[in-house]
Amino acid sequence: MKRNIELVLAYDGSGFKGWQVQPDVRTVQGVLNRKLEKLLAEPIKTMGASRTDSGVHAHDQHVTFKIENAIPLVKLARALNHHLPEDVKLVHALEREEGYCARRSARAKHYVYIIKQGEQKNPFLGRYVWSIERDLDFSAMVAAARCFSGINDFKSLQCVRDFRSRSVVQIFTSRLEENHGHLCFHVVGRSFLYNMVRNMVGALIKVGVGDWNVAQFKMNLFSGDRSQMGVTAPAHGLHLLRVFYDRESYPLDEGKAILNRHFELLD
Amino acid sequence: MKRNIELVLAYDGSGFKGWQVQPDVRTVQGVLNRKLEKLLAEPIKTMGASRTDSGVHAHDQHVTFKIENAIPLVKLARALNHHLPEDVKLVHALEREEGYCARRSARAKHYVYIIKQGEQKNPFLGRYVWSIERDLDFSAMVAAARCFSGINDFKSLQCVRDFRSRSVVQIFTSRLEENHGHLCFHVVGRSFLYNMVRNMVGALIKVGVGDWNVAQFKMNLFSGDRSQMGVTAPAHGLHLLRVFYDRESYPLDEGKAILNRHFELLD
Repeated sequence: MKRNIELVLAYDGSGFKGWQVQPDVRTVQGVLNRKLEKLLAEPIKTMGASRTDSGVHAHDQHVTFKIENAIPLVKLARALNHHLPEDVKLVHALEREEGYCARRSARAKHYVYIIKQGEQKNPFLGRYVWSIERDLDFSAMVAAARCFSGINDFKSLQCVRDFRSRSVVQIFTSRLEENHGHLCFHVVGRSFLYNMVRNMVGALIKVGVGDWNVAQFKMNLFSGDRSQMGVTAPAHGLHLLRVFYDRESYPLDEGKAILNRHFELLD
Repeated sequence: MKRNIELVLAYDGSGFKGWQVQPDVRTVQGVLNRKLEKLLAEPIKTMGASRTDSGVHAHDQHVTFKIENAIPLVKLARALNHHLPEDVKLVHALEREEGYCARRSARAKHYVYIIKQGEQKNPFLGRYVWSIERDLDFSAMVAAARCFSGINDFKSLQCVRDFRSRSVVQIFTSRLEENHGHLCFHVVGRSFLYNMVRNMVGALIKVGVGDWNVAQFKMNLFSGDRSQMGVTAPAHGLHLLRVFYDRESYPLDEGKAILNRHFELLD
């Protein structure tokens, strides 16, 4: 029986055309597969918990794959991290039971979308946040953000290129918070439609700039009509913060702690 | 009489071939000059406090230049920040008295060099720190780092390509500290030789890995012989943190606070 390996990866999405392997472009899965196949000398088929888009960052991407090779896990982890490029790093590696799959076993995902209101004066954060120079009505956005919670038909947030028939999705938590001058939209859901979080943020901005009040926002959200819901926010403000496997409660705090560790270099 | 303008810039050095304008390569000064000349429609000659190398970051680079244009400063600042690319940003702009010059008026500069000991698992910091997988003797490095303080002939740290005859330099503070799992070498000096901080770090590493004890380090440091002093540390771990103009004391804390604000996104 093959061994079932799980890796937890963090990556800066700026230099990748997303997670999913594609011919002739640099993707995280493409880079990972190549390194693994070289190290293990066997064909490898990786499965990621989330197919992050081009430019989207991940702090806690989970990946599973099966191997024949008897290499000790610690050795594999060290060699892999040594060979991975600077913008994708192995956080840890685990040996899993048969049947465990990074994508299918996941119970919830926590994304955060980071907005900087006003001029972006920090060149070290420009890759990770969306800067908006217009005034935003923060309290109206907070109220609108709450409307995403629950089990709802989010057809109005479904990308026109997404042909899945089912657009009902369960959102456990949806909350906009201010931290250190950044607006952070935290959302935890069982699953997400294609581009859904970025579409949520585009709609929240319509409330923020005063185009809609919260009642109009709610009406448009449940209209089932994509054309009513504003633009798609850019990819570089979006972060996959945490994937949950084992629990029925999905605290925001764990994701926030991860984000902290990644951005905070000194006290 | 022309107006004398000072800008304070922050930049991520990863995508630049250093500060100084050069034909056919992307430099910070080159980008800045082009944007200023376009906005102000007159030739602009900028002077930077520090000629940071290719790959070196700056959190507090000061730049002065003279203009004829009567544009209000606030308007110039807003337009410039809007047009600058994501990896270089204007922190603030000031109108200065005649004779003030970002380079000649500077009294001290604070650099920090950041070392990550062990595997780098954070892809968001790889561009800003030097990762060393070997074990380092921290307390020996702390002791060695102190030896740089004072007015000394640092010929042993002078790059062979640096043809200045004078290698006597005044270092006000030189201190290695551990913060959040990173070794931070803070150094404040009146001026620095070409590549000097990176050469200091290369020498400290020789102590860290046990090639030299502190007595040998000191002997090599004052030998006047560059070939005795180890390698030059890579550029991407080096940050210009603070330039001092007005005082006779140069507290490390102000620089540390700047670094904090830049790296810390959430609590």
